[in-house]
Amino acid sequence: MKTTKVHFTDPHIELAHGAGGKASRRLIEGLLVPYLMKDTLTELNDAAYVDADGRRLAFTVDSYVVKPLVFPGGSIGEIAINGTVNDLAMGGAKPLAMVTTLILEAGLAASELEREVVAMAKAAQRAGVPVVGGDTKVVEHGKADGLYITTAGIGLSDPRVHLSAQNVRPGDQVILSGPIGDHGITVLLARGELDLEADLTSDTRPLWPFVAALIEVAAPGLRWMRDPTRGGLATALNELARDARVAVVLDEEAIQVRPAVRGACEILGLDPLHIANEGQFVAIVSPEYAEIAIDALKRVPGGEEARRIGEIQKEPNRVVLARSRYGGTRVIDMLVGDPLPRIC
Amino acid sequence: MKTTKVHFTDPHIELAHGAGGKASRRLIEGLLVPYLMKDTLTELNDAAYVDADGRRLAFTVDSYVVKPLVFPGGSIGEIAINGTVNDLAMGGAKPLAMVTTLILEAGLAASELEREVVAMAKAAQRAGVPVVGGDTKVVEHGKADGLYITTAGIGLSDPRVHLSAQNVRPGDQVILSGPIGDHGITVLLARGELDLEADLTSDTRPLWPFVAALIEVAAPGLRWMRDPTRGGLATALNELARDARVAVVLDEEAIQVRPAVRGACEILGLDPLHIANEGQFVAIVSPEYAEIAIDALKRVPGGEEARRIGEIQKEPNRVVLARSRYGGTRVIDMLVGDPLPRIC
Repeated sequence: MKTTKVHFTDPHIELAHGAGGKASRRLIEGLLVPYLMKDTLTELNDAAYVDADGRRLAFTVDSYVVKPLVFPGGSIGEIAINGTVNDLAMGGAKPLAMVTTLILEAGLAASELEREVVAMAKAAQRAGVPVVGGDTKVVEHGKADGLYITTAGIGLSDPRVHLSAQNVRPGDQVILSGPIGDHGITVLLARGELDLEADLTSDTRPLWPFVAALIEVAAPGLRWMRDPTRGGLATALNELARDARVAVVLDEEAIQVRPAVRGACEILGLDPLHIANEGQFVAIVSPEYAEIAIDALKRVPGGEEARRIGEIQKEPNRVVLARSRYGGTRVIDMLVGDPLPRIC
Repeated sequence: MKTTKVHFTDPHIELAHGAGGKASRRLIEGLLVPYLMKDTLTELNDAAYVDADGRRLAFTVDSYVVKPLVFPGGSIGEIAINGTVNDLAMGGAKPLAMVTTLILEAGLAASELEREVVAMAKAAQRAGVPVVGGDTKVVEHGKADGLYITTAGIGLSDPRVHLSAQNVRPGDQVILSGPIGDHGITVLLARGELDLEADLTSDTRPLWPFVAALIEVAAPGLRWMRDPTRGGLATALNELARDARVAVVLDEEAIQVRPAVRGACEILGLDPLHIANEGQFVAIVSPEYAEIAIDALKRVPGGEEARRIGEIQKEPNRVVLARSRYGGTRVIDMLVGDPLPRIC
C-alpha cells in the first residue's frame, strides 16, 4: 500500500481487530500487509487478481466464525459459500470453483455438522459453483466453537471489467442493491442475549447474478464494487473515499433500512450504516451508465430495491458525508470497536 | 467416489476424525463427499483440477492447527505455507499464488502473531510463491488455541504430467524422497508432556523443486505422488492400494527412519510408517523411469537420500505389505485412532 504508513503497536489481539473497522485496518495494514503482501498488493479488495498463463483469475478466501451457527434465513455453512462467491463477484469474476476447510471442535454433534454440510451443498448448487476439494481438522473440546469454516474461491475475471478505486471519479454515482443491516441485526438477535425480537432474516444470497447483469449493460461504466459485510456500508465507503481520494456524498433518505433494523439500532445505539450485510453490494458507476445499471439490477429477481444512494465528489477529500432530508450533513466514520463480534 | 459406499454413523466428532486415518476417511467419504463433492470428485488427491478457460489449474486448501505453535525446525506459519505449496506440487502443478486466513484468539500476544506472519512471509519467499490476499477473524479467548491458519493455493498444472491412482500399474516403482517421521515426532516431543528428548527437527520444506526436477526427466513415467502428512506413509500408500486396486510391496529396510524417530516410536508403541511428515513425498514411477527419477531427486539439494522403497504388484489386491530383512512380510494398515493429535 503506497498510501499509508500504519504501525501496529497494540500489545494483544482483541475482538475489535476482527470487526472489519479501524482496528482491523490497523492490524492488516500495520502488520499483515507489510510482511506478507508488500510486493504483491496494490489495493485491498475482496478478491486478488492472478495471471494464470494469460487468463486473469480472481482468487479469494474467507474464514467464517459466525455465532450462533444457525440464525433466521441462514447458517454458517450457507454464508461460507455465499460470502466467497460474493467476493469473486465483487472482483467482476464469474465464480469457477471453491475449496473449503472445516475446523471442528471435538464433541460436535455429527447431526450439526451434517446440517451445515447440507447447507453448504445447497448454497453451492444455488450459486452454480462446485466445491472441488477440502480439508478437515479437529481440535480439542474448548479449542473452537462448534465449527469454523474457511472457503477459498477462484473465478474468471471478465475482461470487459476494470475495477479499482483508482478509476473512481467525481460525478460517479453510488448504487446500492437493497436494504442494509438485515444480516448483522438478525445474528445479534439470534443470540438471544437481548430482550428483543423482530421479524427479520439474514440477507445472505449469491450476488453473481446481479453483477453479471451489470456487466452485460454497464461494463465500461463500472468502477468499483464491494459487498459491505463487517463494518457495514460506512466502512466500505470510507475505504473507497480514502483509496480513491474523493468524497462520497450520500443521500441518507435513499438508503433503505427496514423498520426492525432501524428499531434495534436505535435501542442499541448503533448506526445501521455500520451493521454487516451478507447479500447486498454497493457499486460505483459512471453517470452515463447509472440509470441503465439500476434498471438491470431491478430486473434480476431480488434486485427490485436497487437504487442510487449518492455520488462521488471531489471534496471533502477522503470523507464520507450523509445528507439528511432536512438538508443537514453528517460525517460518516468507519466502524470503531466491535459492537457485534463474530457476525460472519 | 465410485468405489465406496461409506456411511458415517458416529454420533459425535472426535479427534480421530481429524487424524488423517480411518476415522477421517469415514467422515470424508461418508459425509462430506456425498453432499459436497458428489458430482465433482473422482479421486481424493491433495489438489483438485479446475479448467479455467483452457488452462488446467490445481487448486487446494488446508487448515493448520498444529500445537505447539513453534517447534524445532518450524512453526505453524511456516507449515501453513509449505503445506499448501506441497499439495500443489503433489498435483504436478507449479504454485502460482496463495491466499490465507487467520483465526485469532482474543488475548493472543501481538508478538506471537508477528512471529508467525514473519515465518509465513519467509516461507512464501523461499518457495517463490506470493501471498496475494487474506482474511482475519478474531474469536473470544477460549474459542481457539492462539491462532489457526488456513492457506489456499493455485498452481498451473504441467501439461506433461497426468497423475492418478488409475494410472498405476504392477511393476511401477515406489520412490521416497528421504527419512520419515521427523515432523510428527518433533512436534510430539515439543509438547513436553513426555520425558523424552531428541536432537530432531521438523522436515518442513517446499517440495516443488523436487517435483520440477522429476517432471523434467521423468514426466511420462510419473503416475502418482503424495506427501504423507497426517496418517504417515502407511496411510498414503493404503489409499493408493485401494484407489488403484493393487498391492504396494515395500522393502522395509529401504525406508529410512532416523534413530531418534525410531527410538521414540519404540518407547511410545508407534509405527514410524504412521507418523506425519511435512517435507517428504512418495512417487510412483514406471520402471523405465525409476532410476533417472531417483538420480534427479538426489541432485536437488536436500534430496540426497531419495531412494526406491518398493514396487507395485497385482496381488494381494488393495493391501500394503512390508518385507523385512529376514524375508518375513507384514501387512501395513492405515492409521487407526489418533496417537498424535494436532500435528499440522
